[in-house]
Amino acid sequence: MQPDPTAAVVLFSGGQDSTTCLAWAQARYARVETITIDYGQRHRIELAAAAAIAVRAGVPQRVIPCDSFRALGGNSLTGDEAVEGGVRAATQLPNTFVPGRNLIFLTLAAAYAYQRGISEIVTGVCQTDYSGYPDCRASTMTALQASLRAGMEFPVTIHTPLMHLTKAQTVHLIRDLGQLELLAWTHTCYNGQVPPCGTCPACELRAKGFREAGVMDPLLVRLGALDPRR
Amino acid sequence: MQPDPTAAVVLFSGGQDSTTCLAWAQARYARVETITIDYGQRHRIELAAAAAIAVRAGVPQRVIPCDSFRALGGNSLTGDEAVEGGVRAATQLPNTFVPGRNLIFLTLAAAYAYQRGISEIVTGVCQTDYSGYPDCRASTMTALQASLRAGMEFPVTIHTPLMHLTKAQTVHLIRDLGQLELLAWTHTCYNGQVPPCGTCPACELRAKGFREAGVMDPLLVRLGALDPRR
Repeated sequence: MQPDPTAAVVLFSGGQDSTTCLAWAQARYARVETITIDYGQRHRIELAAAAAIAVRAGVPQRVIPCDSFRALGGNSLTGDEAVEGGVRAATQLPNTFVPGRNLIFLTLAAAYAYQRGISEIVTGVCQTDYSGYPDCRASTMTALQASLRAGMEFPVTIHTPLMHLTKAQTVHLIRDLGQLELLAWTHTCYNGQVPPCGTCPACELRAKGFREAGVMDPLLVRLGALDPRR
Repeated sequence: MQPDPTAAVVLFSGGQDSTTCLAWAQARYARVETITIDYGQRHRIELAAAAAIAVRAGVPQRVIPCDSFRALGGNSLTGDEAVEGGVRAATQLPNTFVPGRNLIFLTLAAAYAYQRGISEIVTGVCQTDYSGYPDCRASTMTALQASLRAGMEFPVTIHTPLMHLTKAQTVHLIRDLGQLELLAWTHTCYNGQVPPCGTCPACELRAKGFREAGVMDPLLVRLGALDPRR
């Protein structure tokens, strides 16, 4: 089977990074589809955000369930981390976090893309802000791509347009693509709040990116939640 | 985290190959655990077989659900294959088959092993009889191992003791390990029948292996289903 070189699948969570990737892909490919993994997100609002953005961007969205993380994550704590309110206190990762999770997400995305005759996969992984996650690094993406090509006998290519960008550069990227408004519908807050809480690590990282970019966050504009102190 | 070098996790389906891998692992490692992926097998008897064998072998068994395949598989048919009774007629693969499925299974096994402090993974993939599956090949396993090591920052090693064995050699392997009787509880038949139908491709491949090995299949002995014509 010859893949369609004008098509791409975006691994799409409804957050700022994958929404920027969606805009990037739409500028580059004639046919763009999205896949969202429903792994039991604590905040279902993330899935609603993804659906809303896909509609606004005019792209198909396929939600694929994956209940493995809940099963692995629920029993995964090795005892050396405190757990508070379903979040590992030390890391602020949801307790459905599983080592190598992006490997699973991207393999599912590749399997879906294969079935659609698409070899180009786009993901928002980034090692600039999240260097603590080994499954977000460029070297991991290179190894994973080789594994997918071998295991599927298909010329899978993983595109990571945000890999070496700062959050501020990511804001500039989607702005320069003319799609900044899509960010008005993204969800970032770890606490699942709308308007966002503004104090969790995810909100702080997002706010810092917009501040350094010199751009107002369209989400806060939409919600009338712009705080001059941010 | 230093992994326990005396421990291994076996990716365990309850079939002949992974049961042989379990026996191989028990001869080699002091601590052996098994993980079974419940991906919505059409024949739930496979899961029952896996549980029964784990008890007989005296090893822990963890069942991890994965509902992604049903979602991907159910919509995956590209229209160029006929489907009969839930099986793709051309291939006899269950219609939950997804390209690169072993990549997912082994990544889940590695995530589980990581959480247990275990780096050694054992799988029954084999390129001798199944060379049509790219995700069963030695080259794929090498690439996947590199991907898992990068993505988990953990010295994952994938062991494939059956990779270059014929089915007859696999029968000899478990016999020589003194564990032939474990095969009396394995499930192979694609039609989910007990006693096995004897005519589906899986039954035929199994029967051919025992015939060439010059060994009676303990499953058929147990069930009183030995047929002199086989």
